[in-house]
Amino acid sequence: MNVLILGADGYLGWPTCMYFSQKGHNVIGVDNYFRRNETIALDCEPLIPVPNLIQRSRIWKKNTGNKIQVRIGDITNYYFLKSIFEQFNPDTVIHYAEQPSAPYSMLDYDKAAFTLKNNLITTLNVIYAVKEITNECHIIKLGTMGEYGTPNIDIEEGFLEINHKGRKDNFLFPRQASSLYHTTKIHDTDLLWFYIRTWNLRATDLMQGPVYGISTYESDIDPRLLSFFNYDEIFGTVLNRFVIQAVSGHPLTIYGKGNQIRGYINLKDTMQCVYLSATNPAKHGELRIFNQFTEAFSVNDLADKVLTTGKKLGYQIRKKHFNNPRVEKEEHYYNPKHTELINLGLKPHYLTDKILADFFRIAERYKDRIIHDKFFRGVKWK
Amino acid sequence: MNVLILGADGYLGWPTCMYFSQKGHNVIGVDNYFRRNETIALDCEPLIPVPNLIQRSRIWKKNTGNKIQVRIGDITNYYFLKSIFEQFNPDTVIHYAEQPSAPYSMLDYDKAAFTLKNNLITTLNVIYAVKEITNECHIIKLGTMGEYGTPNIDIEEGFLEINHKGRKDNFLFPRQASSLYHTTKIHDTDLLWFYIRTWNLRATDLMQGPVYGISTYESDIDPRLLSFFNYDEIFGTVLNRFVIQAVSGHPLTIYGKGNQIRGYINLKDTMQCVYLSATNPAKHGELRIFNQFTEAFSVNDLADKVLTTGKKLGYQIRKKHFNNPRVEKEEHYYNPKHTELINLGLKPHYLTDKILADFFRIAERYKDRIIHDKFFRGVKWK
Repeated sequence: MNVLILGADGYLGWPTCMYFSQKGHNVIGVDNYFRRNETIALDCEPLIPVPNLIQRSRIWKKNTGNKIQVRIGDITNYYFLKSIFEQFNPDTVIHYAEQPSAPYSMLDYDKAAFTLKNNLITTLNVIYAVKEITNECHIIKLGTMGEYGTPNIDIEEGFLEINHKGRKDNFLFPRQASSLYHTTKIHDTDLLWFYIRTWNLRATDLMQGPVYGISTYESDIDPRLLSFFNYDEIFGTVLNRFVIQAVSGHPLTIYGKGNQIRGYINLKDTMQCVYLSATNPAKHGELRIFNQFTEAFSVNDLADKVLTTGKKLGYQIRKKHFNNPRVEKEEHYYNPKHTELINLGLKPHYLTDKILADFFRIAERYKDRIIHDKFFRGVKWK
Repeated sequence: MNVLILGADGYLGWPTCMYFSQKGHNVIGVDNYFRRNETIALDCEPLIPVPNLIQRSRIWKKNTGNKIQVRIGDITNYYFLKSIFEQFNPDTVIHYAEQPSAPYSMLDYDKAAFTLKNNLITTLNVIYAVKEITNECHIIKLGTMGEYGTPNIDIEEGFLEINHKGRKDNFLFPRQASSLYHTTKIHDTDLLWFYIRTWNLRATDLMQGPVYGISTYESDIDPRLLSFFNYDEIFGTVLNRFVIQAVSGHPLTIYGKGNQIRGYINLKDTMQCVYLSATNPAKHGELRIFNQFTEAFSVNDLADKVLTTGKKLGYQIRKKHFNNPRVEKEEHYYNPKHTELINLGLKPHYLTDKILADFFRIAERYKDRIIHDKFFRGVKWK
């Protein structure tokens, strides 16, 4: 299978390149180094220095004999993306090439406009390239559980049959997000859904929860293959930040009451989910939506787990509640369905004490690189 | 009231400038001449030559003594828009500055990308300017009934309470559009709704059906004040096109079976609706949605009305069905609610034989300018 991975330099992108490569697929990875450049500009570089994508591809080849092709460029330029489709003729395109941070999208006008343009135009370009070059190509796009928000009804997987005044119809599940970033992902889903209905394309939209973890089986081969791991407020996610705070003696930064519940997933399981989606593609005319997480936790649940595991490992960890800089519900109903990927064969790595202890142990190696200033700057939604 | 009108050169923009001006308000109109330039590029100039906005403002002043300020520039440049907000401090901003054509958005990649970027960024910029300069300003944005599509359930005005598995919540009415243009209007609504919840802004989103008519009471003063009236496939709307076809001896161009039903509104009633919205603003934190049309017709209903009126005026009119170039349902349920604007005081100009005959009489004056080539080029959705 020819697999084109857009956003190949990111937290998910590079592990995905290696995952498909070790399974014997022909992989090309594309990135414009947005995250790499912005983490320098915003003083929030990743925990572990990450060789550039060309170097990582060389290290991978030396270790495994497998080749991952690399192209550096910006796919908001449609004609650049189209040229890659023409040369490579992908069977699957995995679209991660979006601005992925909620706080980034709320920083100021320019970052909001960038997020909106980048995320919508990259998605439009993927759609057009598939239509114009290879209609058979299966689009796998990363959405987010945040598209649904925290409604007072059960969250289904993508669609909902609505009964109203004695009549019924089937719709995309109602979406209402709590950041501009998450709103652009709603936009993406609507865009994809329109063109699928009109052009008979096929796509899988993965509504993923926050990802945690630092390593995959592929990165265990050589530490230079570890992912682009952020622990800061802007590009980091909550559990990753908590583990880094724990090993460096910083209190866990809890926003508001900490009763905000979300669905979480291990980085290793993201790999499985994307692979299962690629090898079991959607049908033409289908927008297939999977809710991609394995367990739901509140922020307090996560903090308590980190405390418990940390204690066993000899850490004294404190929690600190901050006034929530975000606008979000701190008490809410949350019951999202997530069975489709399990039905396809996903074997979850649940957040056990052992998994968390392993995470601590890798983090400990890079303890000296942790900079406390990066944990909290309080990017306010208002 | 200080009223800022964005997209002031367009079919709705200029009549709106005059309407608010004759009511004694302080009006500033902004346009980048997108439609003016593109109608030349695409060989679909309006029926009646339209003086530029500065000239129209002068003609208006000579006739009425009222001043309409004009600024020519592109509001996708945030800092341009912001400077206008700073100087003018609007109480109301009316946002028409979008690419308004469904076929245009489906022509090719570049026009799709333009539509997406223009429509989303202009809306973001309006939101940011209101937030940064004058949070009191009431945003009136033009949406479209096309956001709802043609669902198999009754269409409510904007929101829907959904009961699901014994629990309930209130959501934006599910939206599913049938062109990229209409999809960008869904995007707009989601964008506005996110920022209203987050920043406590206030806005009215007008879900308007296709507009018909060539004149308003204000343009009756001087024919040089008539609106930018397109009758072509790209920028024209169906009833306007049918009347021009009728007076020029061209068959009425019906797409497919002609049973597609939409809600229509007279240009004069658009003026009333926007004025009622401005003088009865939404509350802070409210996204107020009105379904802005007065009567629902099928395409065949419209064709038959044009035939009937035309016959009385001595025209022999034929109908011609074309293979539908669009992807849309030609048989569907359609029952949208539209009571909120009536409750606010809207007095509709219904599509009577007399109204239609008046329309014919104005169109007849410009008969020699009608070019048959422009009626149908068959921009295909697929």
